Amino acid sequence: MKLLRVGPEGAERPAILAEDGTLLDLSGVTRDIDPAFLATGLDDLRAAYEAGELPRIQNTKRVGAPVARPGKVVCIGLNYRDHAEETGAEIPDEPIIFMKAVNTVVGPDDDVLIPRGSTKTDYEVELAVVLKGRARYLDSPDEARALIAGYAIANDVSEREYQLERGGTWDKGKSCETFNPLGPHLVTADEVPDPQNLGLRLWVNGELRQDGNTKNMIFGIDHLIWYLSQFMVLDPGDVINTGTPAGVAMGRPGTSYLRTGDVVELEIDGLGRQRQRLA
Amino acid sequence: MKLLRVGPEGAERPAILAEDGTLLDLSGVTRDIDPAFLATGLDDLRAAYEAGELPRIQNTKRVGAPVARPGKVVCIGLNYRDHAEETGAEIPDEPIIFMKAVNTVVGPDDDVLIPRGSTKTDYEVELAVVLKGRARYLDSPDEARALIAGYAIANDVSEREYQLERGGTWDKGKSCETFNPLGPHLVTADEVPDPQNLGLRLWVNGELRQDGNTKNMIFGIDHLIWYLSQFMVLDPGDVINTGTPAGVAMGRPGTSYLRTGDVVELEIDGLGRQRQRLA
Repeated sequence: MKLLRVGPEGAERPAILAEDGTLLDLSGVTRDIDPAFLATGLDDLRAAYEAGELPRIQNTKRVGAPVARPGKVVCIGLNYRDHAEETGAEIPDEPIIFMKAVNTVVGPDDDVLIPRGSTKTDYEVELAVVLKGRARYLDSPDEARALIAGYAIANDVSEREYQLERGGTWDKGKSCETFNPLGPHLVTADEVPDPQNLGLRLWVNGELRQDGNTKNMIFGIDHLIWYLSQFMVLDPGDVINTGTPAGVAMGRPGTSYLRTGDVVELEIDGLGRQRQRLA
Repeated sequence: MKLLRVGPEGAERPAILAEDGTLLDLSGVTRDIDPAFLATGLDDLRAAYEAGELPRIQNTKRVGAPVARPGKVVCIGLNYRDHAEETGAEIPDEPIIFMKAVNTVVGPDDDVLIPRGSTKTDYEVELAVVLKGRARYLDSPDEARALIAGYAIANDVSEREYQLERGGTWDKGKSCETFNPLGPHLVTADEVPDPQNLGLRLWVNGELRQDGNTKNMIFGIDHLIWYLSQFMVLDPGDVINTGTPAGVAMGRPGTSYLRTGDVVELEIDGLGRQRQRLA
């Protein structure tokens, strides 16, 4: 199923994109696609969907993030070899963890705001994993897959000066307003047979900048969830940004960072497409 | 006012500790002390409290964290000169930011769980600031004070090996389960005339380990809120841990880290007292 939330910011309604391209209203099934729903509601939803009982939605001017109020957004750094190399970093021995403020999560086509005074706003196309189960001290990566609700595209927008030149941890350059476009859909795990073989692409003003594949992750999805569960408790609704392949502006000498008016487009096989204007 | 939440984990009810020491039920005023309530409800609450209309609560076996479901827990690193020196770090030129997962927030007297395999679980007494207003690109620190709902004690529990020796950012050692006891009260800002002159103390098994004063912060509270607002949007209910003074185990050669059965007690002038058992 392709789950999404449509409507004005802060007043989105839950919906499902049917296979024939129509948009069906989930308001009668759940108030929202939020952590509580992801933890318990997906089976009932599937039954209602398959019974064909859901009303259509017309007029969808805006798509919001497909998950409302995630409890956390956990990110993995330098998880593709070519990206680690382009930034001059060593290949990590174990996953690098950082966090984004959850209020960075916006819709897939919302404007991305360049922070005041920023000169190094950068893009990162990433496979986002959304959980439906709780992960606490998993015994092995084999236990991870059953906890995944689905997958979505994330743009892990980053301000490199704040991240790397202003002291302290990376978090300073990762949590600026609008810095985590998510969506358009949350594609449920059953529709993504091999999440470790998905092409990811990102364009700036029509120019292809990133062109990777999730098969090139240093640490795969199951390993990441197992690993994270040793350091924190992951809850339903949590979002994990699994890292970005090469091609970010920081890694391309002579390439300018993002500027007002630029258009960024992102795509992952089977997960749809994002398009943001920089403002 | 001293606001708190009492009852079993996940089923706390909002309460107020009256000046005569009785505990009054706020369930008729608000469903919970959460971000939405802090943003809009404090004035109505004060009116109800002063009108003397609130029923008493008997039997309070457990005190929870005084804020339910904060949107984020933002932490400031190395914000006391003596603590920066004891860790061997340089005095920062500007505030160091890191984040804790919000599901680390537990009650002030709940057990703190030593992570599996951990040998370097450490304590940090900190003044926590809770917001009632939104902070976005504040023009100056002078605008910060009006956005503060109140103050509480936080124990910014930290696993030093995970934080410093396992690659990546500090976040890896900061977000373990139960790693942010908060409370017992949220003391509203009007009852804390000078938050920059509060003694903070922490004991392990009765031995005084930390004994500082918020007047020794490198960056004061108003500066921190102003500074953070340039890098992220702070929302009502957000918690800011403002740093810890000297005396953590990491900074005391020959001092052991926390072990199962240890008892940690924390106190800040006017904000009450915490007591945790390590488990």
